Amino acid sequence: MKNAKSSRSAISPTREENYADWYLEVVKKAELAEHTQVRGCMVIKPWGYAIWENIRRVLDKKFTQTGHENAYFPLFIPLRYFEKEAKHVEGFAKECAVVTHHRLEQNGEGRLVPGGKLEEPLIVRPTSEMIIGETYAKWVKSYRDLPILINQWANVVRWEMRPRMFLRTAEFLWQEGHTAHETEKEAIAETLQMLNLYVDFCKNYLAMPTLYGRKPLEERFPGAVETYTLEAMMQDRRALQAGTSHFLGQNFAKSCGIQFQTRQSSGEGRSYAWTTSWGVTTRLIGAMIMTHSDDNGLVLPPKIAPKHVVILPIVRRSEEAKEMFTYAEKLQSALQQKQCFGQSISVQIDRRDIRGGEKMWSWVKKGIPLRLEVGPKECASKTVSLSRRIDPVSTKIILPREEVISKTPYMLAEMQALLLENAERFQEEHTQKVETLEELYAFFTPPNDAATCPTGGFALGYYDEQASTQVLQKELGVTVRCIPFDQEGSSGPCLLSGKQTNQRAVFAKAY
Amino acid sequence: MKNAKSSRSAISPTREENYADWYLEVVKKAELAEHTQVRGCMVIKPWGYAIWENIRRVLDKKFTQTGHENAYFPLFIPLRYFEKEAKHVEGFAKECAVVTHHRLEQNGEGRLVPGGKLEEPLIVRPTSEMIIGETYAKWVKSYRDLPILINQWANVVRWEMRPRMFLRTAEFLWQEGHTAHETEKEAIAETLQMLNLYVDFCKNYLAMPTLYGRKPLEERFPGAVETYTLEAMMQDRRALQAGTSHFLGQNFAKSCGIQFQTRQSSGEGRSYAWTTSWGVTTRLIGAMIMTHSDDNGLVLPPKIAPKHVVILPIVRRSEEAKEMFTYAEKLQSALQQKQCFGQSISVQIDRRDIRGGEKMWSWVKKGIPLRLEVGPKECASKTVSLSRRIDPVSTKIILPREEVISKTPYMLAEMQALLLENAERFQEEHTQKVETLEELYAFFTPPNDAATCPTGGFALGYYDEQASTQVLQKELGVTVRCIPFDQEGSSGPCLLSGKQTNQRAVFAKAY
Repeated sequence: MKNAKSSRSAISPTREENYADWYLEVVKKAELAEHTQVRGCMVIKPWGYAIWENIRRVLDKKFTQTGHENAYFPLFIPLRYFEKEAKHVEGFAKECAVVTHHRLEQNGEGRLVPGGKLEEPLIVRPTSEMIIGETYAKWVKSYRDLPILINQWANVVRWEMRPRMFLRTAEFLWQEGHTAHETEKEAIAETLQMLNLYVDFCKNYLAMPTLYGRKPLEERFPGAVETYTLEAMMQDRRALQAGTSHFLGQNFAKSCGIQFQTRQSSGEGRSYAWTTSWGVTTRLIGAMIMTHSDDNGLVLPPKIAPKHVVILPIVRRSEEAKEMFTYAEKLQSALQQKQCFGQSISVQIDRRDIRGGEKMWSWVKKGIPLRLEVGPKECASKTVSLSRRIDPVSTKIILPREEVISKTPYMLAEMQALLLENAERFQEEHTQKVETLEELYAFFTPPNDAATCPTGGFALGYYDEQASTQVLQKELGVTVRCIPFDQEGSSGPCLLSGKQTNQRAVFAKAY
Repeated sequence: MKNAKSSRSAISPTREENYADWYLEVVKKAELAEHTQVRGCMVIKPWGYAIWENIRRVLDKKFTQTGHENAYFPLFIPLRYFEKEAKHVEGFAKECAVVTHHRLEQNGEGRLVPGGKLEEPLIVRPTSEMIIGETYAKWVKSYRDLPILINQWANVVRWEMRPRMFLRTAEFLWQEGHTAHETEKEAIAETLQMLNLYVDFCKNYLAMPTLYGRKPLEERFPGAVETYTLEAMMQDRRALQAGTSHFLGQNFAKSCGIQFQTRQSSGEGRSYAWTTSWGVTTRLIGAMIMTHSDDNGLVLPPKIAPKHVVILPIVRRSEEAKEMFTYAEKLQSALQQKQCFGQSISVQIDRRDIRGGEKMWSWVKKGIPLRLEVGPKECASKTVSLSRRIDPVSTKIILPREEVISKTPYMLAEMQALLLENAERFQEEHTQKVETLEELYAFFTPPNDAATCPTGGFALGYYDEQASTQVLQKELGVTVRCIPFDQEGSSGPCLLSGKQTNQRAVFAKAY
């Protein structure tokens, strides 16, 4: 085993130096995405998009297995739909893209200007409850037409004032499930089923532990009776909402007119349906980056990595090239025969004609789980120099070729497990029970001699939902992220109001 | 074998009575899509969307195998980008959705109105050459950065004045490939490779033969040097453009600034890249419908069907239900073990509590390839009543259960082949060489005594590209669809100008 001489890091600034800039630099150096000249809109580059495709593939299968079907609804929503649900408008329609014209015309100076004014403006969907609700109202006549279990993979637009790649962009990609049910009980069960599905996905695929439960009143989805959330802890100890599942009661059914003939055949027997909606977005990529990456760039959980392994042929003299590439190709094809996580191991050979160091670092920054170097020495001795992304960059283990082939699936599985373990340990270390407001303030306040060092994390404190968090938010930048399902059953005074309560909430700074 | 008593058809009007309305009725009765209150936008329902997912899955794999990667570019394009490519604007930016505001506000009367006017309007992408070109200009510095081989699955918007579901909608789903190359030769090879990939896909998956070749000058993509097309013949003998692949020369590279350092290291040695773009859309679903469906509704090529087989349990007395369902479930699980077209056979049991006739017809209209009925008789004798969608509706064959299980993969493959055969025969029957303008007019003109009967098809006539087709278009509604690659090598006078030429073109009415 060789060890690194230098301790330089590939990402500058480091996490400690400037976490926000470190994040943007990781995104850039991993070639995940980049800004465009369209305000708040990003290009998702092939390596970033492949991560999204993997997320989509896994979730889509889980949605199908739980009885959901995919469909597609219009990008545009007529303005008048928003006037039906006042609360929804307040929350969603405020900052959105408004289409007012359907043509470009040349003006007197030969410049292009909007023409063909629409009679009614169209809103680019910020979310689709209203347009899907209008459609379900047509589809649902009797209890026999329920449940409707539909999901949509789509782009949505919310005009963000402070966009950040993956975390908060004007246009983003997501899935939105929209279901309608005969009974309240069924709809609540659906809402919770989907929350649990997200929790399971984050844990077992993104290697990202979450705390999950109910959102407090003031953080609920506009129009929802209950919003459930899962909150992950980033390495700067801030909370990131990784997904939400909403029980909408009969609110949207009433504003959209989703009514059905009940099982009671006698009399009028009509009832409004109970609906739900649930979604995760490309934000999950941001969450994954900030959970695992280090000062050398992206670290990918193997289960979600676009490629598992890269083979780097070290060609020092051009006459050796053929032999190196043949050795690399045979290694690639032997590895691709192996299975891991129920799929073939994906292996890329980097054939680029660039310096070996540059080539190796590019893959470190891209977060590929395993790097295999094959040079003249390895070729001659039928070995492979192996480096795991989760070890220091210059750590190499030289192993017999056959051993690398047989062990790769186990190494990938082990890395997946280690990443989860690390993330769970980090979350535990920075989760703390607080019993008083003073303790809460202390938890989020850096000691005098280190004003910039990271503080806080998840503070678990008693919380009565009637209490306002406004002062807390203003003074500390802390909000109530969720009221976890998992409660110990004891009670105490609310940190804010002093009122006795039996539930603790997660207080945290948040993305 | 039993035969039908009645000859009623499930779709009214029939193809003969009114082809356009028949089409819309097939779409409706198969539950593929429906109109919305948003002008020109449709809801793609689960059965229709599953067809699109199958098309996407197959094509996406082919794109990957030919070296392409997926990425995602912004929905919005700044207005000024369109001013750079005048020809492109003429063709594309004329009828499009223009975003002018980024907020909704309440006016004095409490009504919602657009607020927050944008400094520069944004266009909802009608196609992405310009925004992707601007991005490639940043990515490409040297010949080492080429080729760029990227595809995007996305929604696009073109303000259609006469929308028709799947065929022509304001918003539609598509894939758009955008590649940049070092040499003209490479770019042309890419353009043709993708055309051939589409031709192969249409033939071998949609069972839809096409004629393919170059577009004449006046039908080219705005800004393209050469547009290649594949044209399918619908059952009303009209041509439908099923996909296009464009060789863009250096036009877009020049307007977007995609320049690179050439291999010649001496001197300035900079060159503009050679680019291509290629795409197919949800229109393919319309093409598939009109190629195979009949007066009883949708007919699906098994390779692209959301489900291959439906099992219809016939429950006459409730005490029989359990036995029927058990029999059906065992049949389902045995069939799902079988492979066809490289994937598991997908089988659905229809458990709905509705009349048997209604249930059966709903699947006929949805075009499912195989229907298997299991009632008390079949249960007792360990048989299954089997009906193929391509046979008359009441044709049933009673076969031993084991035989149905073992033969299903072959029956599906046979149906796939028969659909292609039928479509090829139809196309051949209605493709004709014409040597004079009179023959061309005769080909497209119904005999006096049958003014509404279908006429025409593909007329193959000599055509000189300088000749205008305006009169033809006005008088007959006929245009030049393509100049096929496949030419016999002889020559003759252009039908329109009389000028000697060695190429025949496909003249047809078109969607």
